[in-house]
Amino acid sequence: MGRWQPNAPQRLVLAALDLFAERGYESTTVVEIAERAGLTRSTFFRHFPDKREVLFGADTMTGLLVEGIAAAPADAAPLQAVAYALDAIGTQAFTPARREFVARRRAVIAANPELQEREALKAVGLTASMIDALKRRGVSDLTARVASQLGSLAWKIAYDRWIDAPGGEDFGEIARRTLGELQAASASC
Amino acid sequence: MGRWQPNAPQRLVLAALDLFAERGYESTTVVEIAERAGLTRSTFFRHFPDKREVLFGADTMTGLLVEGIAAAPADAAPLQAVAYALDAIGTQAFTPARREFVARRRAVIAANPELQEREALKAVGLTASMIDALKRRGVSDLTARVASQLGSLAWKIAYDRWIDAPGGEDFGEIARRTLGELQAASASC
Repeated sequence: MGRWQPNAPQRLVLAALDLFAERGYESTTVVEIAERAGLTRSTFFRHFPDKREVLFGADTMTGLLVEGIAAAPADAAPLQAVAYALDAIGTQAFTPARREFVARRRAVIAANPELQEREALKAVGLTASMIDALKRRGVSDLTARVASQLGSLAWKIAYDRWIDAPGGEDFGEIARRTLGELQAASASC
Repeated sequence: MGRWQPNAPQRLVLAALDLFAERGYESTTVVEIAERAGLTRSTFFRHFPDKREVLFGADTMTGLLVEGIAAAPADAAPLQAVAYALDAIGTQAFTPARREFVARRRAVIAANPELQEREALKAVGLTASMIDALKRRGVSDLTARVASQLGSLAWKIAYDRWIDAPGGEDFGEIARRTLGELQAASASC
């Protein structure tokens, strides 16, 4: 109904991050988020189903991972294909320009158990997407599961390392190195 | 306040399983669960915080895993210690007598996305407990994370295999074999 609002989702996400950091996730309402963004409540609900999803919307990550795995060379080993997926995240989602934003998002999530639950579930969904993408390459079920778990773990560790990295190293580089460390660790289990 | 009710938690869990299977999780109320168990609403809330937790209560699994890892021989490799934990689950939780109950619980969870979310979060918590238990044995952070992810995956796969096993093989045996397969798969990633 309402007229088109340029960048409405991004403005809502940034407004939500500000308010969650200022007064806490629980004490912030959808109306307040919309007002801070200079938008209406109904515009909020056109983009997000509820307050929690404002930090977890738009499943670009799943798409990037699945496309990254599909785009890996045909002869790439499962973990190499996963590395391609993590590279795609680095070049298209976790870019240097987004580092500060991602760091703020992480801080807000760390302060709220409900958001941490949502983040954990999101990781389960991303792992399932990687398993499917690997199986479409002909990887066996068990190997696809193991490679996806290692990839998901590499993601999580690299995410923290990237945000905290003083030198501003690329996410993709950090993720590849982390994946190598996890592969070595799995050999010494 | 109310008098002590013998086996109240078990009776409530069984009543809930029956009702969830009969009429669905959404359509069942706490009062109905209590009535079916021959107990009161307040007895229900003395044992469980809400309807969902009736299938996820009493954190015996975490205790068994942590104790199993701690009880492994001092020279056991990380994945061997995890195998001890899975053995403990087999001898003390997933016993042959409980197989039918666990199968019914699995069917109810498979039919409801909210319960699946809860199950996924529970798995995240169990993995975190294993990581802590391994680190207390002096295992490095990365290796503890990898071993716990493989252990968690072995648990999940072995759980399905155990319920579906025609011969009634022990959970512990199935879990050990599964862990070996995952270790081999991780070497070929």
